[in-house]
Amino acid sequence: MDQQQREQYHRSLEATLVEILELLEKHRLERELSLRQASGQRELVDALLARQHKGEFQRRLARMHPADIAFVLERLPTDERLELWALVDAERRGGVLLELADGVRDSLIAAMPQREIVDAAEHLESDEIAYLVPSLPQDTVAALLSSLDQRERHKVREMLAFPEGTVGALMDIEMVTVRDDVVIEVVLRYLRRHEELPDPFDQVFVVDRDGVLVGILRLKDLLTHDPDRPVAEVMLREPLTFSTHDPASDAVGVFERYDLVSAPVVNLHQRLTGVLHFAAVMDFISEQAESQQLKQVGLTEDEDLFAPVMDSARNRWPWLGLNLLTALVASRVIGAFEATIQQQVALAALMPVVASIGGNTGNQTVALVIRGMALEQIVASSLWVVVRKELAIALVNGLLWGSVVALAALLFYRQPALSLVMGIAVAANLLIASLAGVFIPVALKQAGRDPVLGSSVLLTFVTDAMGFLVFLGLAAWLIVG
Amino acid sequence: MDQQQREQYHRSLEATLVEILELLEKHRLERELSLRQASGQRELVDALLARQHKGEFQRRLARMHPADIAFVLERLPTDERLELWALVDAERRGGVLLELADGVRDSLIAAMPQREIVDAAEHLESDEIAYLVPSLPQDTVAALLSSLDQRERHKVREMLAFPEGTVGALMDIEMVTVRDDVVIEVVLRYLRRHEELPDPFDQVFVVDRDGVLVGILRLKDLLTHDPDRPVAEVMLREPLTFSTHDPASDAVGVFERYDLVSAPVVNLHQRLTGVLHFAAVMDFISEQAESQQLKQVGLTEDEDLFAPVMDSARNRWPWLGLNLLTALVASRVIGAFEATIQQQVALAALMPVVASIGGNTGNQTVALVIRGMALEQIVASSLWVVVRKELAIALVNGLLWGSVVALAALLFYRQPALSLVMGIAVAANLLIASLAGVFIPVALKQAGRDPVLGSSVLLTFVTDAMGFLVFLGLAAWLIVG
Repeated sequence: MDQQQREQYHRSLEATLVEILELLEKHRLERELSLRQASGQRELVDALLARQHKGEFQRRLARMHPADIAFVLERLPTDERLELWALVDAERRGGVLLELADGVRDSLIAAMPQREIVDAAEHLESDEIAYLVPSLPQDTVAALLSSLDQRERHKVREMLAFPEGTVGALMDIEMVTVRDDVVIEVVLRYLRRHEELPDPFDQVFVVDRDGVLVGILRLKDLLTHDPDRPVAEVMLREPLTFSTHDPASDAVGVFERYDLVSAPVVNLHQRLTGVLHFAAVMDFISEQAESQQLKQVGLTEDEDLFAPVMDSARNRWPWLGLNLLTALVASRVIGAFEATIQQQVALAALMPVVASIGGNTGNQTVALVIRGMALEQIVASSLWVVVRKELAIALVNGLLWGSVVALAALLFYRQPALSLVMGIAVAANLLIASLAGVFIPVALKQAGRDPVLGSSVLLTFVTDAMGFLVFLGLAAWLIVG
Repeated sequence: MDQQQREQYHRSLEATLVEILELLEKHRLERELSLRQASGQRELVDALLARQHKGEFQRRLARMHPADIAFVLERLPTDERLELWALVDAERRGGVLLELADGVRDSLIAAMPQREIVDAAEHLESDEIAYLVPSLPQDTVAALLSSLDQRERHKVREMLAFPEGTVGALMDIEMVTVRDDVVIEVVLRYLRRHEELPDPFDQVFVVDRDGVLVGILRLKDLLTHDPDRPVAEVMLREPLTFSTHDPASDAVGVFERYDLVSAPVVNLHQRLTGVLHFAAVMDFISEQAESQQLKQVGLTEDEDLFAPVMDSARNRWPWLGLNLLTALVASRVIGAFEATIQQQVALAALMPVVASIGGNTGNQTVALVIRGMALEQIVASSLWVVVRKELAIALVNGLLWGSVVALAALLFYRQPALSLVMGIAVAANLLIASLAGVFIPVALKQAGRDPVLGSSVLLTFVTDAMGFLVFLGLAAWLIVG
């Protein structure tokens, strides 16, 4: 790099850092460092730019919250990301890895030698290690497990047994338990002996001698009840409980409806095995919402914005291939009517309008049905209510917009027969679209598939192919034939 | 209704209720009623069907959680929904209204006389009333406000001053405050005097004599510290604080990153005015995620699945109209090449493939860019990194898929020149799509618009019109011309 290039590089890196730091400030990150003074920002930027301040910069990083370090890393291009990562202390790296978005975490792990990964993960709790394991290479997992003591290794193995998407995989195993035959005062003294209590901490779990959950004792009840009363009298019996194998998506609804901070998790023998925190549920909601948006366009892998070009290009192939296939089939429908088009070339210009309006209205139905199914507002017996309603809407809109389109066609070509065919085809395609819009997601779900992934491409295929078929078929029959 | 019709009606209503009750059970709703016994379910269904059991049914409803009643109401078709609503006690209706989805709440409010709405809302806290107000007719709001005592009315008015989407509009005003010059023991005694503490309750706020927030005292610190120590020594100073006018979307990131249960909210004078609970933030996330999916297909109003047909049909007009307009413009691009198509009719069959593959790949870019902007991973200085990368991906995929498409065209028509044009047009449209996929959402955001609403329709317009133009233009120049 010559001097000019280097300066340019520094200027752009500096600009990126300044912007990220402004974000940090806006989001109240790094509060301790009082980034609100502009001088603090400049310092941090300068420190990263000038290597002689590496020590000072490392000290700042050491005081940042792991989630804040993750926030910065996610926003840096690959080279700068690795540069910053090298400055994070080994014992804090595990915490940062937990907070990172999947794609970014993968990019860092891919660049770390096995020894460093093991060092980073060793400092974590067993449930946290289990959370990281799916991102790690096979042999690193083996090395990591053998570096743990037997008890920890056993716990990690237990956690790994819970499949992704279950409550067991999301739960925390750190919790405080008491027996029901003591008085509140004893519980208070027991809690006071703790150096540090779990965070967040809103309830103590009451178990019997076999570890079976018998009740919960909310912190606020501990505070408002007479210290001489026995736990058994104050605790809530039969609390809302999850099983380790419950799907996490069920927990989402329950947490939202009852505004729970945490809930006990039991195993198949009713033994208390963990606690599900709202934070884990909230992360799950956010991840679901994000992946839903990407799934709609066929992106199933979380894509790091700064990932290598070839990785990203390959990530998009299945969807491109599928779309190409359906487009070629729809193209064959048109191919079958080439003679008709030859005679009446206006058809070629008008046919995409029929297909497009069908696809757009059908995708509205798909979005409503997928949401209705996710919220379980659509149950088998109300499916027909929805179908009838969507058909009625399509009829109303078909008559209205079919007429508008017919008028537009009349304006362009001044051929009443062509206009009529256009109007009928639009109305028919709207009806087809509404039926397909309900049945495609329902059928995918029945088949055990995720309706978000695929509904839209299938729907567009149906509305394209059928739109071309109805329009060109009618034209062949009524005008040209 | 004749006997047969009535029986049919009862059978379908019964089926709907049984399914909803199964859902209730699956989601651990109505636990107190031990719906796990099938007999309990049958009872509830029978009670709703046979009017003579109305009293028993009403008693069951009285014991259900408001969120559970809302859950059932959301899943019932309009008539049954109103029937059930009539059985809910007046003083519980307010609580249920708060829990309902917007569209369903509107349907009930539309059916209630003003007097009933006021009765239902009167039993709520002032922040809850403020939450309902936007759903109520103007004159009902006036009647409701005049039914409150002056202090309450003032509080509601204050809450209403916070615009939707700000922290002030989401916060709760019920909280416990103490002064910093007392000892922990005094705080514990003060708390013990409360019959009921706010729920959830994880911290006590410490204020000075002017009500200015000086710190927070976490419940767990109250429990683990020596009761003789003064609050000033135990409290956390400079806690993470929100202002009433902060955007709620900022709070989402902060709550997720730091796993907060609640955070204090201050006004412009640093006076403590409320508390923001994770539950409100969680609701906000869910609502955003849902509305995002619907916005992508141009549905801005929350649509009740069982709303009247005409309302729903009208709800979809703006999007249909916009799509029709863009489709007609794209159709005019084709119209300009009618002479070319007349000479080489295969162009008509192939042109939708060029448009479709561009639209699909562009929508992938749009989804990634919108997500990147929402997570603020894309800042101004990294925008060019993203553009360069998307262009590189389009180049790779354009060469690859352009060749595949060219081969397919060769297979269909055995005209090398046509294949070449097809391959070049696909590659060109992928490049156009990637540029448009980045710049359309960025431009919409720059213009202060929501990129989710409109990006996709604009992108499809560009890829359709440009796809037709490039393909037909090249064909006119290289083959036909």
